[in-house]
Amino acid sequence: MNERVAIKEYLTQCAELTEASLKKSIPTEWDVPDRLREAMVYSLEAGGKRLRPALVLSAAEAVFGKPALREAALPVACAVEFIHTYSLIHDDLPAMDNDDFRRGKPTNHKVFGEAMAILAGDALLTHAFHLIPQAVRKGGISADAALAIVEDLAKLAGAPGMVGGQVADMLGEQGITSISELEYIHLHKTSDLIVFSVTAGGRIGGATNKQLELLAQYGRNIGLAFQIQDDILDLIGDEKKLGKKTNSDVQQNKVTYPFLIGLEESKAQVERLTQAAKSAVLEAELLAPERLLEIADYLVQRDH
Amino acid sequence: MNERVAIKEYLTQCAELTEASLKKSIPTEWDVPDRLREAMVYSLEAGGKRLRPALVLSAAEAVFGKPALREAALPVACAVEFIHTYSLIHDDLPAMDNDDFRRGKPTNHKVFGEAMAILAGDALLTHAFHLIPQAVRKGGISADAALAIVEDLAKLAGAPGMVGGQVADMLGEQGITSISELEYIHLHKTSDLIVFSVTAGGRIGGATNKQLELLAQYGRNIGLAFQIQDDILDLIGDEKKLGKKTNSDVQQNKVTYPFLIGLEESKAQVERLTQAAKSAVLEAELLAPERLLEIADYLVQRDH
Repeated sequence: MNERVAIKEYLTQCAELTEASLKKSIPTEWDVPDRLREAMVYSLEAGGKRLRPALVLSAAEAVFGKPALREAALPVACAVEFIHTYSLIHDDLPAMDNDDFRRGKPTNHKVFGEAMAILAGDALLTHAFHLIPQAVRKGGISADAALAIVEDLAKLAGAPGMVGGQVADMLGEQGITSISELEYIHLHKTSDLIVFSVTAGGRIGGATNKQLELLAQYGRNIGLAFQIQDDILDLIGDEKKLGKKTNSDVQQNKVTYPFLIGLEESKAQVERLTQAAKSAVLEAELLAPERLLEIADYLVQRDH
Repeated sequence: MNERVAIKEYLTQCAELTEASLKKSIPTEWDVPDRLREAMVYSLEAGGKRLRPALVLSAAEAVFGKPALREAALPVACAVEFIHTYSLIHDDLPAMDNDDFRRGKPTNHKVFGEAMAILAGDALLTHAFHLIPQAVRKGGISADAALAIVEDLAKLAGAPGMVGGQVADMLGEQGITSISELEYIHLHKTSDLIVFSVTAGGRIGGATNKQLELLAQYGRNIGLAFQIQDDILDLIGDEKKLGKKTNSDVQQNKVTYPFLIGLEESKAQVERLTQAAKSAVLEAELLAPERLLEIADYLVQRDH
């Protein structure tokens, strides 16, 4: 991955590295009930963009100046994917969104049953925290840095973070009337895990506190832009490229950015957030900011 | 807590310390949706023996030789109670045991709904890992020790630990025919979190690897003894003292130790496990092993 490749190719390479690492992430020597292991692996290997792991790798590289440190960054990249995966399994449950399919495959509880899906989610969430200490062993980051990453993840994925966003989304269904309520949901449900990814990468690369704060700003902005872009694509995207039906938000009466502020203003907002994200990265004076800048643009230009 | 008090009083004091600490364990300045915070606190404050936190405190004290280190041990004691609490909330869900009451109070999902109960469990589980780094800040244990505690908790509460035991229990319902299957369930579903409690306490107290291994043996044995004693009390206990109906295992056709090996042999097994636990503690040559020895006896002699 040293030669200069286009951003799409770069993200594909990050995804491949992540997937190879995910395959080895639950020790084979552990005495885990077969069915539980299957349920965990089923959702871990169900695909997706692996965007969050790519952000861990890219941020580490941006701060450190070259694509080293991968032995430290990959366990953390896997950890965030474990968290993301558990959150999708629990979101899909009958008591929550009650979805039968995700990315064209039956959801976890449709295959393994509801009880197993709850437990597989719990096990994935717990295992994320087993992966982070390995960054010390494999990659030589300090125990202090790894512990800060543990603390960040527990906050950003927990009650004041992703879970809080999920709760606000659930409680607010239908009843949201203001942009600030919608923003709270997206900042926590989506941005917080992206903020974790870039700041954890930053910690691995040896970022200063100032740089970490600017990386967090970058994460908050691209997370929000990503979410608004999702809303826009649901309205005007190409079903073939998206791999799912459009207009589902309208049909479900979901309150979205385009619903609240209109399509054109939503597009303008995505543009503003992307610029703000890039400004934060530039202000951080990182040794190799290019990939983070390219990812910000890529997320807006994507059509799926 | 320096003066010598009886074990029951000592455990009550540990529980009070834990409860005071639990009350402060979710930062008030965090922007958490009110209803989520209520759901988390509802189950955290629903009582229980607080046995696992007491084991963290006792093991730290046993290794260190005196009841210092409490500023380091209390965040970890709370962490294990957060894990225990989340596991009860998820166990009680309709898709799992479908229980309406626990300790005489309506279960979490009966009060807050199923979706919120799932999310409150997720948030409690995640927050456990936010508490452990505080042992470094508040109590001066090393980042290396805290990170080892994180790694232990993620293993012992995760797929090869408590969740694995829960899955085995669920899959094995009705179909268990051997002691070894039943032992697998209890060792993971019950003992693993007790093993975590005593070894985490040991790490805080500065235990050697040999001492940690012996503390783990102690934990495995008292965990199993505790579980068999539960089965025995369900058969021959006093409903008033237990605060619940006896013979529920028989009515639910649950496979228990008395069912498999008979009541007398179960009692003998509890005695053997207790002795083995005490032998391990004595072999560890701890500076103040008394409380751990007393707890092992207390758990067998209890009538509720």
